[in-house]
Amino acid sequence: MPTTTTTWTRHHILSLADFTPDEYDMVLQNASRFQKDVLSRGTKKVAVLQGQVVTNLFFEPSTRTRSSFELAAKRLSADILNFSTATSSMTKGETILDTAKTYLAMGANIMVIRHREAGVPHAIAKEMDRLNSKVSVLNAGDGQHEHPSQALLDLFTICTLLDSDNPRLRLLKDKKIAIVGDILHSRVARSNIWSLVASGAQVHLAAPPTLLPQLFASYPQEICSNLFVHWELEPALKNADFVMALRIQKERMKEHLLPSLREYYQLFGITRSKLRMCKPNVKVLHPGPVNRGVEISSDLMDDPEFSLISNQVTSGVAVRMALLYLIGSTKFM
Amino acid sequence: MPTTTTTWTRHHILSLADFTPDEYDMVLQNASRFQKDVLSRGTKKVAVLQGQVVTNLFFEPSTRTRSSFELAAKRLSADILNFSTATSSMTKGETILDTAKTYLAMGANIMVIRHREAGVPHAIAKEMDRLNSKVSVLNAGDGQHEHPSQALLDLFTICTLLDSDNPRLRLLKDKKIAIVGDILHSRVARSNIWSLVASGAQVHLAAPPTLLPQLFASYPQEICSNLFVHWELEPALKNADFVMALRIQKERMKEHLLPSLREYYQLFGITRSKLRMCKPNVKVLHPGPVNRGVEISSDLMDDPEFSLISNQVTSGVAVRMALLYLIGSTKFM
Amino acid sequence: MPTTTTTWTRHHILSLADFTPDEYDMVLQNASRFQKDVLSRGTKKVAVLQGQVVTNLFFEPSTRTRSSFELAAKRLSADILNFSTATSSMTKGETILDTAKTYLAMGANIMVIRHREAGVPHAIAKEMDRLNSKVSVLNAGDGQHEHPSQALLDLFTICTLLDSDNPRLRLLKDKKIAIVGDILHSRVARSNIWSLVASGAQVHLAAPPTLLPQLFASYPQEICSNLFVHWELEPALKNADFVMALRIQKERMKEHLLPSLREYYQLFGITRSKLRMCKPNVKVLHPGPVNRGVEISSDLMDDPEFSLISNQVTSGVAVRMALLYLIGSTKFM
Repeated sequence: MPTTTTTWTRHHILSLADFTPDEYDMVLQNASRFQKDVLSRGTKKVAVLQGQVVTNLFFEPSTRTRSSFELAAKRLSADILNFSTATSSMTKGETILDTAKTYLAMGANIMVIRHREAGVPHAIAKEMDRLNSKVSVLNAGDGQHEHPSQALLDLFTICTLLDSDNPRLRLLKDKKIAIVGDILHSRVARSNIWSLVASGAQVHLAAPPTLLPQLFASYPQEICSNLFVHWELEPALKNADFVMALRIQKERMKEHLLPSLREYYQLFGITRSKLRMCKPNVKVLHPGPVNRGVEISSDLMDDPEFSLISNQVTSGVAVRMALLYLIGSTKFM
Repeated sequence: MPTTTTTWTRHHILSLADFTPDEYDMVLQNASRFQKDVLSRGTKKVAVLQGQVVTNLFFEPSTRTRSSFELAAKRLSADILNFSTATSSMTKGETILDTAKTYLAMGANIMVIRHREAGVPHAIAKEMDRLNSKVSVLNAGDGQHEHPSQALLDLFTICTLLDSDNPRLRLLKDKKIAIVGDILHSRVARSNIWSLVASGAQVHLAAPPTLLPQLFASYPQEICSNLFVHWELEPALKNADFVMALRIQKERMKEHLLPSLREYYQLFGITRSKLRMCKPNVKVLHPGPVNRGVEISSDLMDDPEFSLISNQVTSGVAVRMALLYLIGSTKFM
Repeated sequence: MPTTTTTWTRHHILSLADFTPDEYDMVLQNASRFQKDVLSRGTKKVAVLQGQVVTNLFFEPSTRTRSSFELAAKRLSADILNFSTATSSMTKGETILDTAKTYLAMGANIMVIRHREAGVPHAIAKEMDRLNSKVSVLNAGDGQHEHPSQALLDLFTICTLLDSDNPRLRLLKDKKIAIVGDILHSRVARSNIWSLVASGAQVHLAAPPTLLPQLFASYPQEICSNLFVHWELEPALKNADFVMALRIQKERMKEHLLPSLREYYQLFGITRSKLRMCKPNVKVLHPGPVNRGVEISSDLMDDPEFSLISNQVTSGVAVRMALLYLIGSTKFM
């Protein structure tokens, strides 16, 4: 693995909007190192975060993301404190910032934060900095804004497939990637757009008009030139190298944004026959949990020739180890 | 402790129906070793599962069984991931198999599974094998089917009482054991029948007719010859060496299977006076949690001369250490 | 740090009513040592409770207190079992004592207990002693009775401020301390009264008449001579060295014990202007979580010149490490 000449300086991981190519590559390379050295070779624990406290502040319930961060932190030998609103003081009227400050005062070193509202991790990070604490904040999903670790694990999954010895951002240059589904409400899509466009990939979004955001005018010019929007699936899939299906929340139907799951599946569900439009080696990703027969046909999801869904989950632990390791390392500079 | 000449080959622990006498003895001997060396002598942690990930997938809530497995895994130095439906993606429509595959992809080595429906641990084990994973599945209670670790801890509790230096299956030969209560709905009873009959004990079931299953015709002949069914308590208790009381779910009354708890206690509740029918050294077991004054009289439950209930809980940690250790050891063959 | 010539003999920590000055000083000195050696100098883990099992039995939900005990136990290298009623057998009809005995049988060494009802930790401790177990019970808040670890962390916070090299009880002699708010329902106030009066401080309680208990007649004479009760805030604040604000439960208004939060804030809320009555260096404490703009003005809470609230949370981990360490050490005598 090539060594990087740069050092990691980012203290919080809140958004991928201003991630540099060097930063993407450092995440990819460290995740690759952890995946190989730590996860595959049997020595599953390393002591890099020994005595550090990682707090999972999950104001929105989640099992898979919390478990993934928890396992990543345990493999780095950190101590974990789990906070979730089900058992929290939030019902007692405490503010979110006060909850975060309580964990700061207890000795938390890294806060992994998920919240229904966009901007909560930023607000907490800002407060931590204002207090001159050394706490790092890691956004584990905020409203419809961003979910950086998910996009980074998607990136790692794809780049590792393209070159398992040396996964790096530039491998995606000129690849065609379709992102399909509820773009409007998806923090996963928003984070992925930043990383994929940064890689030089051609990013094609496909969604029913009711599930597409109006905000693309706000993206800078260099992004828009590699970002394409479609109201139908076909132009996005045509010759695609990778297809990312997004999760459909069933609540969207109550909001009259979707007619029925059956109709959605017919128009935007990824099936074996629709994949014939793509490149022959096309691969399918999904952030999970999957509604089988809605976003993806059930047989396709289980077909290792096409599906990268299990790889994504495995990548998640390695990428989160890399993120915790990198932001942990900034604390001692 | 005698050494066994056999090696452990069972990869999943789903049912006791096909457990061999050698397997029972290996569980008993390893549990005994852990109980003595690890629990009693102060060196409470051993590193045999260091770096291994044990996932508690509890689709049905449980405190005592989950805590027992969690403590057993911690004492073997494993990392634990707790999953329970309260905070899960199940509400998001993910299938049970997909949940299990997510934890497989994260790196789980052993899955401890409890579910309301019979057969779920088997289905997950089958899927893990189909995927050529090395994951072991441990059934921690599935519907009204089986609860192997509970029956094994009951067996260990009894055998240790009979010979604490060398607990083994054959010690139970020709002992009379009464199992009293809601046999129909009890996974504990079903697992216990397999182990106790395998030991050569005489197993007497006593329950109101509404709480007895019709399925004994389906048992093989060699089991039926040691299995006796009674609609009254007396013939089961007469000269019994051990009495296992089962838990009464209060919902059974709503289902009109039981007239009242008071009447149940009068007819089938274990009391000091009823125990006079048994052997003089008779002991009482209960899987817990106990409804005092329903299945057992309150004073009897607290009397160490008769009650093995605390011993059962203590045995649970040692037996689960043994099970995790034995199935963990098959991974490196 | 001076060495103490006494040894710790208290096995359970249930109440501060009979704490001796030596005991207070041993807690303060050990907490100080942990705060300095363990928390500040980077070696955050010590192995003093390696292999010991600390069980958090929280029959009443709590995040901050449970997290604080959990982190303290982890830093002492203990194994933790978390129990909370949300996922418990309590719904299955098991008694509280039986739940505690289950954890005893599993191998718990220390039980940290919180319950809505006063006296539950005492009852469990009594049962543990009756059974000749070596389990120690630590009261983490019982009804409106006591919350000893909170009062001890308050004491440590204050004494450390007065002399960070050598915090000890006598530093508080003749200091004036105001406790403001819902004294009637506050276990925090009850525990603080014992420690503060023992220190020789002048303790002034201020609350609306509906939120003041009638029970001061029952205190011994030597306590009453240092304990003063006011129906208004001003006499309590006048020349105070420290002000402890208590949490207002919003349910109190439904019970018609409080007219409105706005009126409460006007009369008893701690604000910058009201603090002018106090000593110039006055400090404000609050056990948290704070209702900003009810018990304390929001700007005051965030002002490190006045607020000790973050210090209290940090002290909490060190004090709980000291308590777990001290009662852990009695087990080997």
